Formats: sequence, C-alpha cells, structure tokens
Amino acid sequence: MSSIPKIVVLGAGYGGILTAQKLQKELNYNEADVTLVNRHDYHYFTTHLHMPAAGTDSIDHTRVQISKLIDEFKIDLVKSNVQEIRLYDKKVILEDGTLSYDYLIIALGGEPESFGIPGLAEHAMTIRSINSVRLIRQHIEYQFARYKMDENRKDRLNFVIGGAGFSGIEFVAELADRIPGLCKEYDVDPALVHIYNVEAAPTALPGFDPELVEYAMDVLKKKGVTFKIGTAIKECTPKGVILATDEEIKSATVIWTGGIRGNRLVDAAGFETMRGRVKIDEYLRAPGHENVFIIGDNSLMFNEEGRPYPPTAQIAMQQGVICAHNVVASIRNQQPKKFVFSNKGTVASLGKGEAIATVGTKKFKGWTAAQLKKLVDMRYLFIIGGIPLVLRKGRFF
Amino acid sequence: MSSIPKIVVLGAGYGGILTAQKLQKELNYNEADVTLVNRHDYHYFTTHLHMPAAGTDSIDHTRVQISKLIDEFKIDLVKSNVQEIRLYDKKVILEDGTLSYDYLIIALGGEPESFGIPGLAEHAMTIRSINSVRLIRQHIEYQFARYKMDENRKDRLNFVIGGAGFSGIEFVAELADRIPGLCKEYDVDPALVHIYNVEAAPTALPGFDPELVEYAMDVLKKKGVTFKIGTAIKECTPKGVILATDEEIKSATVIWTGGIRGNRLVDAAGFETMRGRVKIDEYLRAPGHENVFIIGDNSLMFNEEGRPYPPTAQIAMQQGVICAHNVVASIRNQQPKKFVFSNKGTVASLGKGEAIATVGTKKFKGWTAAQLKKLVDMRYLFIIGGIPLVLRKGRFF
Repeated sequence: MSSIPKIVVLGAGYGGILTAQKLQKELNYNEADVTLVNRHDYHYFTTHLHMPAAGTDSIDHTRVQISKLIDEFKIDLVKSNVQEIRLYDKKVILEDGTLSYDYLIIALGGEPESFGIPGLAEHAMTIRSINSVRLIRQHIEYQFARYKMDENRKDRLNFVIGGAGFSGIEFVAELADRIPGLCKEYDVDPALVHIYNVEAAPTALPGFDPELVEYAMDVLKKKGVTFKIGTAIKECTPKGVILATDEEIKSATVIWTGGIRGNRLVDAAGFETMRGRVKIDEYLRAPGHENVFIIGDNSLMFNEEGRPYPPTAQIAMQQGVICAHNVVASIRNQQPKKFVFSNKGTVASLGKGEAIATVGTKKFKGWTAAQLKKLVDMRYLFIIGGIPLVLRKGRFF
Repeated sequence: MSSIPKIVVLGAGYGGILTAQKLQKELNYNEADVTLVNRHDYHYFTTHLHMPAAGTDSIDHTRVQISKLIDEFKIDLVKSNVQEIRLYDKKVILEDGTLSYDYLIIALGGEPESFGIPGLAEHAMTIRSINSVRLIRQHIEYQFARYKMDENRKDRLNFVIGGAGFSGIEFVAELADRIPGLCKEYDVDPALVHIYNVEAAPTALPGFDPELVEYAMDVLKKKGVTFKIGTAIKECTPKGVILATDEEIKSATVIWTGGIRGNRLVDAAGFETMRGRVKIDEYLRAPGHENVFIIGDNSLMFNEEGRPYPPTAQIAMQQGVICAHNVVASIRNQQPKKFVFSNKGTVASLGKGEAIATVGTKKFKGWTAAQLKKLVDMRYLFIIGGIPLVLRKGRFF
C-alpha cells in the first residue's frame, strides 16, 4: 500500500474540474494520488444548457470529454455514480466499488428544488444535465409533431416555464428564438404557440438591476413571451399547471427552473445542511472535518452583508482553485488560503444578439452585453482547455 | 352561371397530380373548369416517406407546393378535407364548402389496413403522410432521449415494424441506417437497440423474386434487423406487441406497414367495394357512373392472370394520364382510351447504397439497383416538375 495521501474529488462540474486541474498542476510527482469521480465521462457547461435544451445549439458545443481536460497519467478518472459518503470511515461508496480517501472534495453539484409544489417532481422537466436537456429538446419538438396529428390538442403548443430567475429567463429567450423554426418545420401558425414564464417572486431576475430587468422583459415580450410574475404555481398536473390565482394553463410541457438545492448525498452524509448546502469555513472546509472540502452548489458562504452567495459557475470555479491550493498546503503543512469571492460581473443571455450584464457598477444591454456573454463563455473554455478548446467548442457567431 | 363542364379532382397524390397536369395541358381555353381539392397545399412523394420517417432525409426533399406543379390560372386549388361524396347530387361536401361537378376524379389515396388486429389502430403509427412521418421521426428520437433519463426502460430501444412488404422493408432499412447516428447523439450502446420486422406472410417482399428477397434480408440482417417472418401480430398493446406465438416484444414504438385499404369516403359514397377499393372499368370509370373516375389506391383492376394490381405510385400515375385523356374525350364526344398497365419495373431501396430491382426479366441488386432507385425518383420529379424540380428536390448523392 502506498503511504502517499489519497485525494478524491467527487464531481467534474465547474468546481471539480478546476480543483482537479489545479491539483494536477501543483502537486509534485508522487506527492499525492488524485481520483476524480464523475457520473459521465464528459464535463458539461451548465451555464450553456439552456441552448441545447431549446434546440438553438448542439450538445456538442455543451460538453467536452474529461480526458481532454486532465492528464490521465496524473489523475485517475472513475466514471461512476456516488452512492454514499462515509465521513467517519473516510470512504466513498460508488455504485460499483469503494474509494478511501485522506482528502475529500465534494463538488457534486445541486439538485432541482421543487419547494414541495405538488406534482412538480413528477410532471415537470428540469434543465440540469446533458440527458435532461436532450429530453427537453426532443419533448418540445415531439409536441409539434403530435399536434399536427391532432389539431384539437392546442395545449401541445403551450409551454410553461416555472421560474424567471437566471436559468428561466435564459431558457425562455432561447425557446422564443426556436419557435419560428419549429413552426416552419411543422407548418404551424406561430400565433398558436404560447410561452408562459411564471414566477412567484415579485420580479423576474431577482438581484439584477431593475432597469435591466425591465429591458430583459421587454425584449422577451417582443419575442412573444407571456409573463406571470408574482404568481406562484400551486400545482403541476399531467395536464399543465394550476396557478395560485386558480387559473389553469393547459400544457404538455412544464419546465421547472425555480431553484436548486444541495445534493441529497450531502444531507445523507450527516452534515448539518440548509436545503442540502453546508456552511463551510473560510478555507472551504466542512465543519468538523478538516480533510473534507465542499465547493460549488453544496457549499454555503455568506457575503459581507450576511447574505448567502447564490450558487453560480463563477463562485464554484474560484472555490475550485482555492480548494486545490488548500489541499496541497495541508499535505505540505503550509498555511491555507482564505477564500474571497471576486465578483467578475453577471451576464444573462436573452437569445440571439441580446443580453443584459452588470460588471461592477457598469450596466450593459443589447449587442454589447451579448458580446460579453460570448467572452465569458470563451474565457471559461480557455481556462479549462486553452486555445484548442476555444476553437473546438467556442461559438464565434 | 357558366355552362362549361366542371371537373373536380379529389386528391393531389400521384394519380391526382398527374390527372390535373394532363387536364391542364389538354384542355382548351374555356373548355372546362378544373378544381383540384387537397387536404394540404403540398404534394408529397409517398414512395419517399420511409426516409424522413426514419430521419435519414428531410421533409423538404419529400414534398413540393402544389402551386409549383399546376398553373393556378388554369386550375383552381382548394385546400380542404373532403367529407362526403354525393354521387346522385353530383356534389362533394368539403369541411368548409360544397363543390358541384360534371366529372369527378376520385384520387383520394388509401388508408392503413389493420386487418382487425386489436390495439393496432390505437397504439401503432403508420407511414402515410408528412404529418405521420414527422411524428414517427420525432417519436423514435424521443425514445432515445427518454431512455437516457431512465435506463431501466430498455424497451424504449426496441422498434417493431409490422409488415415486411415494400414499405416495411424500405423503412426498416432506413431505420437501421439511422440507429448508429442516434446512438452517437444520445451516448447509447448500439448493441442495446433492436429492430424487429414482423410479417405474417411466409416471406418478406411477397411477389418479389426469391433470390432478391434473400439478398435483401441478408443486407438488413447485417444492419442488425431481426426478422420474424411467417409470424402474425396477435395484438398491439401500449407496451408492445404480442405475436401469434405468444411471444411478447416490449416496445414503445410500433410502426404498422402491413397493408392499405381504400378510402372510407369511397365506401360511404355507396360504391360496391372490396376493402374500400372499387372495381373500375377499362376506361377507369366507376360502375354505373360514366362521369366518375376512380384511380390509384381506391381503384381495383385485374391483370391478365386475374390478380388485382397492387396499389403503387406507378399505376396511379399511368391511370392519371389516361383518366385525364378520357375526361377530355368525353367532353369532346370522342372515344375514350382503354387503360393498359405498362410495368416499368420495381425497385426496393435497402438503405444507403443498397437496393434490389426487377425490370422486365432482369434482376439488379446492390449499388446498381440503388442507382436505379435514384433514377426512378428523378424521373418522377422530372415528369411532374421538369428540370427545376429535379434540381430542387433531387438527391444526387
């Protein structure tokens, strides 16, 4: 048996991939064993999923083989599902094996949160993985095909998106862009198609600058989106949704983007959680477990005003880098670094050629913001894969 | 009111389009009013539907606007559904109007024949229109998408095609060609996908040369098709099919190609029919109605051996030309022409680069036959639309 420390990274999302890459770079030969566990053999760009979900971009532009991102001579890649984290045994149970660790990085990503709304888990789809967005894309097109065989079923042309946060708005924008093409392909009158965006909060895109929110909603209304803001979904049924106002929207397609929570594996591991998220210390460590780091959607950190940071790709990536640094520091008995979030700004895409963005105190909208969005995407590809990945996966037009 | 004769052509399939075009060419100015009634504003190539149904070619290559095929200054085009044919009133009831006629050409096309097999009409799809093949294409892809969200449902990767006649074999071949691409797109192991072709008759492609049938089955077996020949489907259920042997094939996709019958509107009109087909005279006229012509799938004619001609595009086209001639002859009090079927040969496509064909006593297979198939398709495009249509809709590669 080797006496060198074993590092296990669970999940190859934004946090996990950045951690693995940074570990690969920092660790000396034989300084530690690193194993990256992921359900798929590919990494996908969660912030890009709204496009293949609507069918406005390909799956191919949305994922990359993990073997292209890490050096498999330096890091072991295990394709498996995690079934259990045993903190006191320092073991991770996979569906087809067991891994023991000295250091564990939990970067498993979140799960959709349905807030106990009846029927949502059963009847709504969520934008959360390559598999789920392929289903959404096909489901939408299938509704057009089925409608043409039975034109009495006009509800097949109603699309309900629950949640007007970041993912909801970005998806709605892509779907609105996709509809004209689908109508042409299926000989459907575009006037028969309805996109409803339902949000319980009093505003769309909560947290965004109100002037930009208004701009975004105007752009989307012009694309044909009907907003129901400040209106909760009371129930989701096989026939559509019932709103808090008792209004029923009949639809064969309900897509829920209303929130995410931490992974249930984290709850099951015995951590104290708030909706599956664990309050970590400033070094990204789980309370009471100095060898366990939690980053990304399962971590809970607060800003200076005492409000939790929302789970974003940006924070997960920054955490990944610090997390890897702190694991290496611990192995070398060096001081860990405190994590300080550096807000690079926020961009929400509104479909082809349209977006809104805030960078520091600056606001952008329209074409300029859309270019910023591309820049953010390109920058990410560059960080994880350099120029070759930018060239292979980037969208230049 | 005009006193010139009114000619109404019902249906713009192979027979109807050829009739309309020939009438347009033969009739002098003000010699007759011609109205062409069709459910869609496009004509589609029924013999090509197996490709878009499998997703191996586009809908765009499978149809053409009727306005490109006829001169709307000479022929009125009415887009409507026929609801009733009133022979003794000389009227046709449309869903949104009524047409009276002096001459009626019934070229409505057939309907799928399910031979009373329970569940078939409810649970199986049929390759019969642009709408139905878009549904089939999307349904198939949807199964892959859904399978990836629940890999226990391996039956989603089973595809059952009922009928190994012409349409069944041609569709099965395209589907087999399509599967590798779908597997790649959805990260599915091709070994998990099964295509079953079930046929009650003792042979596939009945009527075809046995040597060519064997060749065809070999080609398709190599593409992964499982044949169940001489095996009837006893029942079609929401879960798949039950065979006469009591074997159950679980599948979310059953496509029935097992036969067609005449249109029910023809039965309802009061004609004496055999499975919806009317035994017409040698001038293509309905018995007892010298002003009513029936061509294509609704007509029944016998060859010299006393066997009925199978309903094909080839015979419908030839009938269309003679039918138009005979209508014009009747208006001019000239002698009508007898219809004599001239067999130009038969080609069955077996997917990319493969086909079988018989022309007279000659047999062809493989690449040569595949080129013949393209030639047949091109020839048809040329007949109805000249060089421009060949260039727009033809498949040269």
